[in-house]
Amino acid sequence: MRELQKVKPELAGGFRDYLPSEMIARRRMIDTIRAVFERFGFDPLDTPGMERRSTLTGGDDEFRMRIYDARVAGARIVEDPDDPDGDRTALRFDLTVPLARVIAKYRGAEGDRSIRLPFRRYQVGMVWRGERPQAGRFREFMQFDADVVGAATPVADAEIVALMVETMRALGVERYQVRFNNRKLLNALPAYAGFDPALSADVMRIIDKLPKIGRDAVLRELVKSPKPASAAGSVAEEGAENEEASFGLGLPADVTARIGAFLDLTGTTDELLDRCAALFRGVAIAEEGLADLRQIVTALRAMGVPEACWAFDLSIARGLAYYTGPVFETFLLDADGKILTLTRRDEATGQEIVEQFGSVFSGGRYDDLVTRFLSDSIPATGASVGVDRLFDYLTRLGKIRLERTLAQVLVTVMDQSAMSEYLAMAGELRAAGIRTILWVGEETAFKAQLAYATAQEIPVVIIAGDRERAASTVTVKDMRARTQTVVPRTDLVGAVQTALGMSMS
Amino acid sequence: MRELQKVKPELAGGFRDYLPSEMIARRRMIDTIRAVFERFGFDPLDTPGMERRSTLTGGDDEFRMRIYDARVAGARIVEDPDDPDGDRTALRFDLTVPLARVIAKYRGAEGDRSIRLPFRRYQVGMVWRGERPQAGRFREFMQFDADVVGAATPVADAEIVALMVETMRALGVERYQVRFNNRKLLNALPAYAGFDPALSADVMRIIDKLPKIGRDAVLRELVKSPKPASAAGSVAEEGAENEEASFGLGLPADVTARIGAFLDLTGTTDELLDRCAALFRGVAIAEEGLADLRQIVTALRAMGVPEACWAFDLSIARGLAYYTGPVFETFLLDADGKILTLTRRDEATGQEIVEQFGSVFSGGRYDDLVTRFLSDSIPATGASVGVDRLFDYLTRLGKIRLERTLAQVLVTVMDQSAMSEYLAMAGELRAAGIRTILWVGEETAFKAQLAYATAQEIPVVIIAGDRERAASTVTVKDMRARTQTVVPRTDLVGAVQTALGMSMS
Repeated sequence: MRELQKVKPELAGGFRDYLPSEMIARRRMIDTIRAVFERFGFDPLDTPGMERRSTLTGGDDEFRMRIYDARVAGARIVEDPDDPDGDRTALRFDLTVPLARVIAKYRGAEGDRSIRLPFRRYQVGMVWRGERPQAGRFREFMQFDADVVGAATPVADAEIVALMVETMRALGVERYQVRFNNRKLLNALPAYAGFDPALSADVMRIIDKLPKIGRDAVLRELVKSPKPASAAGSVAEEGAENEEASFGLGLPADVTARIGAFLDLTGTTDELLDRCAALFRGVAIAEEGLADLRQIVTALRAMGVPEACWAFDLSIARGLAYYTGPVFETFLLDADGKILTLTRRDEATGQEIVEQFGSVFSGGRYDDLVTRFLSDSIPATGASVGVDRLFDYLTRLGKIRLERTLAQVLVTVMDQSAMSEYLAMAGELRAAGIRTILWVGEETAFKAQLAYATAQEIPVVIIAGDRERAASTVTVKDMRARTQTVVPRTDLVGAVQTALGMSMS
Repeated sequence: MRELQKVKPELAGGFRDYLPSEMIARRRMIDTIRAVFERFGFDPLDTPGMERRSTLTGGDDEFRMRIYDARVAGARIVEDPDDPDGDRTALRFDLTVPLARVIAKYRGAEGDRSIRLPFRRYQVGMVWRGERPQAGRFREFMQFDADVVGAATPVADAEIVALMVETMRALGVERYQVRFNNRKLLNALPAYAGFDPALSADVMRIIDKLPKIGRDAVLRELVKSPKPASAAGSVAEEGAENEEASFGLGLPADVTARIGAFLDLTGTTDELLDRCAALFRGVAIAEEGLADLRQIVTALRAMGVPEACWAFDLSIARGLAYYTGPVFETFLLDADGKILTLTRRDEATGQEIVEQFGSVFSGGRYDDLVTRFLSDSIPATGASVGVDRLFDYLTRLGKIRLERTLAQVLVTVMDQSAMSEYLAMAGELRAAGIRTILWVGEETAFKAQLAYATAQEIPVVIIAGDRERAASTVTVKDMRARTQTVVPRTDLVGAVQTALGMSMS
């Protein structure tokens, strides 16, 4: 074999490994989420990591997301003029677009490989986005989605909210709240406040700054003179999110005042529903949205979902496109019921920045799901756990205990010639369902074996030296209690179960 | 929004979806494998789907596998003359190369993100290869690997064989056998039979045809005149696997006779060990290989692994590169102990072809694991379940029951105005751990709801119409027994548990 130059054992930027300590905790989290989703009647689905490019972009030449193209090294792409993207593949950037394709492909199909509506599916998997790598921003991350397809009723939305609450509870999070709104209320703003619906996106972009710049600054921006027509490009295109906009929308004072009245609405869920009803009276789309929300609230109470775990919140918007009805976000709260904050140091300036924890489980209704594939429309609602973000937050909050190994027992090797005896012990322990390691390392010294067990935090160590074997006994060392017991060899399994605190069976 | 042309909801060739019926069974299979691997002391690891290209190719310009390059659409690759592949990424084609990178990167690292040897890890995930799509050949498939890194002893190999046997047993496979050999015996062939070690690859390639063309044809090919030197290229490069080779190796008759004697060796594991010892007496590498195998056999017996489940088999070779010691394969057997066969129709000729089922769980020792990254070498052994192939075979054998849903109960909606009551029932059932669907479909007719439950094979349906609600009762319909019971509303959960055959708790 040719001698090759050594390769650096590094990952590409924006990617990461999950070592056992992280994977053990992640697996537990995923198993917990899965159990809740299944209890709510969701079934598993899986789709490939790679899709036809046209499926992902919707055939839209102006599709701007930085997705990963995937291409067989050295392969030739066969162009089909009717389907120019057909032979090109790219990595999925979410699990919703593949769900839409699955619905369009299998709904009404014959035989076993068919899908019947309403279809409740969950899917967990990695998605890829070519974001510029930076602290806390990754190019591969895990999503865990639950969606109901073919259900137009707000009861289905309420079930999603209940699922979100139950998932957080099952994960052992103490303080959290699922907050919801209805996109229909935001869609009603032009008719209610009296501005051109064409300005909606710009108005929403400015309202979105509310938590950052406050109510008065938002209203000032709405009133401020717009960019002169000579400066090309709309405000929406130019106004990068982090840049202080120097131009406004030039809305009249009475319009801005009505938007201010909307922003000023506060109260409990029930109060807010009433205040919105008064504010939006006669605006059909808003009244429809409020009726949806009232149905959701009634359903949540009927299911017995604790009141403290959910709230109607007008500030939830979930971006600009995609959603058509109720939208949901989940926040971790502090003891005062405020969204938890995170302090980080800005890389460029070195200053400390205090930021709210983002939503860890979000979703909403999107009734235009399959329109890129089919001429009819199919209602759908659902939500997605941001597994990596949730894991990160719970780790920062000290809610995740990292264990180095799942192994419960290390059978040490005191004497290579007695290996058969050690193997028999390992076999017995495993047959009893006990997660067992037999020492197979290069170092044979007992001290090295014990150091390994200590470093790996393995709770029980089995020792059988000359003395034990001569007396048909074994020493069971409880590493946590720092005790050890000599028991008859025949009691090995029972003694280990006792040390592990397992019920004897 | 612009109206876009509709996109075909199809997958790229060589990819597939797993609908719930397949995913439910696959998840069970994966959970079963995981539980066995954990009992043997393996911990989970995960690595990204994408690696630096140089990690995957080992920096080898002659790397020939058809891997998928992955590239952010529109992104510029920054060339680094010292590391030309560094900024390029490609999709992993197996889980072993990423393991090697992880070992090289984290072994001996400081703090939590370190790896200590011996390291037992399992990893389950998709891998991608740009094979030409054809029947049963996919470009994305799942591997489930278990490896022990940092263990040179054959005891570690024996533990892998025991793990393989226990996995097959736990999956409910009745007849199977893990067959193993040692690459050292094959490496001993030149010294034993007396041919130039440079011919090894060619000799092995011809011996590999044994099951297809038989012993005598193999020997004839070994003797036959080699390709004249004027025809460029070595036999190994030219001889495509499916092409009838028209040239041989021109080995002398006494050499071929010794190879024939090797091929003629048969017997039980113990007989074969003795016969090999006699045949290879004085050939150091073979004697070393046989000593390994004897240790493996002793260890398997010490662990109590049933004798019928494993065997020493000289025909196991596991390809030409990569492995350095014991190698393992797992076959499904018929009632006579023969490898199961599969009949398929050749697409080109239309003829029926009878083929042996391939190995479903294979591996071996590969002590040169990290040499592409580090100057030292680290011993390792392990095996990988071909999840898709195993699933396919077990499905063909009728060993996998496909269920349409995990849902156990459908709560029907008889009256929209009583929705709160139905929601309360769903909430109670879910709180009792019962997987429950509430009807949220577009059709409101009871008949449609019942047809859904029948088609989806949901075992229990709850009905609460006017009559039941007036009497504070519910009807529990057992869809399998085709019976129904009216029970007090307060007994809902208990009655459903009874119908499902769950223990009341």
